[in-house]
Amino acid sequence: MKTINIIGSGNVAYHLVRALKNLTNYKIQNIVIRSLDQVANIFPRDLVISNINDLRKADITLIAVTDSAIHEVSSLIPFEDSLVVHTSGTTSLEVISDKNRRGVFYPLQTFSKDKEIDFKEVPLCLEAEDLNDLTELRLLAEELSNKVYNISSNQRKSLHVAAVFVSNFTNHMFTIGNEICTEHNIPFDILKPLIKETADKINYLDPKGAQTGPAIRNDKTTIKAHEDFLKNKTYKTIYQLITQSIQENV
Amino acid sequence: MKTINIIGSGNVAYHLVRALKNLTNYKIQNIVIRSLDQVANIFPRDLVISNINDLRKADITLIAVTDSAIHEVSSLIPFEDSLVVHTSGTTSLEVISDKNRRGVFYPLQTFSKDKEIDFKEVPLCLEAEDLNDLTELRLLAEELSNKVYNISSNQRKSLHVAAVFVSNFTNHMFTIGNEICTEHNIPFDILKPLIKETADKINYLDPKGAQTGPAIRNDKTTIKAHEDFLKNKTYKTIYQLITQSIQENV
Repeated sequence: MKTINIIGSGNVAYHLVRALKNLTNYKIQNIVIRSLDQVANIFPRDLVISNINDLRKADITLIAVTDSAIHEVSSLIPFEDSLVVHTSGTTSLEVISDKNRRGVFYPLQTFSKDKEIDFKEVPLCLEAEDLNDLTELRLLAEELSNKVYNISSNQRKSLHVAAVFVSNFTNHMFTIGNEICTEHNIPFDILKPLIKETADKINYLDPKGAQTGPAIRNDKTTIKAHEDFLKNKTYKTIYQLITQSIQENV
Repeated sequence: MKTINIIGSGNVAYHLVRALKNLTNYKIQNIVIRSLDQVANIFPRDLVISNINDLRKADITLIAVTDSAIHEVSSLIPFEDSLVVHTSGTTSLEVISDKNRRGVFYPLQTFSKDKEIDFKEVPLCLEAEDLNDLTELRLLAEELSNKVYNISSNQRKSLHVAAVFVSNFTNHMFTIGNEICTEHNIPFDILKPLIKETADKINYLDPKGAQTGPAIRNDKTTIKAHEDFLKNKTYKTIYQLITQSIQENV
């Protein structure tokens, strides 16, 4: 039975713990969280510690804290020469203190505590300095997910930017759509089949080939009407800029 | 058995014809297309005509042409006092020539000829000047779809703007993500579970509550790194503007 430590209590840590608990060949040794009061009740109580000095060596230690804290947290780990990996999309492997063997275990998904996810479908992007460590990470990753990739630091950085566009920015488009509906007494539910189909379509068509709407048709009358409709200046500018970008992309 | 005419050969006309063909209480009388050569083979050959003067009266005539052509096409219809509706999200009902009884039959979905869709899940937004006509449209709509709404012209205009954000602009985010992947030799498939989850999440959380990523966390280091990464000026401006909009929206 292999042992795993998790440091962090955010969305990634939460979903990692949920998924790790179900594995038969791995056992969570400890979960390090900053404040016991805040979040301890969502984690298995007996595994939670708040003082990193109490952390014992495990086969793999996963750091799932905010990017800017990874270096400091990794320096505070009270043991050496063990496999320590972070879960960040943007941060380079070198940020981890070199007193331990370093790697990356990046789950490419949008995590919220209020929304369950099927971890088997979460792409896991792996990197390690040492080939044995990469194998060790892959063994764990393949127990957790059906989608495991070796991704270099450079590729991971590109992937993270791409992920911001396809997920974070897409979700903001949904927020704007929701606001427009609410303002005009239209249930947001009317838009849900459209949202579902938009996401599904790219499994069949290349996104460029899937593009529809007034911008790609260069339907100036509709574009003008939509610009006039939008009173929120930021939303109007977003409308104009993305319309321009769609047209540049033809 | 009620009769239906369709004028147009674009994506909406194509998917309407496909769905109408399966109904038992309705029969397609004629499909008017501009050029027989271009598209006749995707429609039932025996129903297709290219001269609008040959069109005979039906219970409902659906105009599914480009928005700017709706008025002219409706004026050319060689009969009067019949129910004639357009399928446009932005166009007002009044654009249809008043020699016929007017209405709107707007399917709120993104249609591409290469991607089949389940018409039962397409929200149909109805409007008519006459209450009997609205009932007539509703009877047809409910045979085609499980999601039928009465939507006023004003609401429909708002809905169309919202649809551009949640669908057309979202798809453009996918295009940008795809481009970034291709440039860095990463298979776009890695992003597909993330895209699926982003769209699914709003069935459980309000989109504002579902927002994740560097913008909402105000993670300045990551935002700066992403800006530096983006060499395409339009994409960089989109990144900055949507980041700003997410932060204004908190």
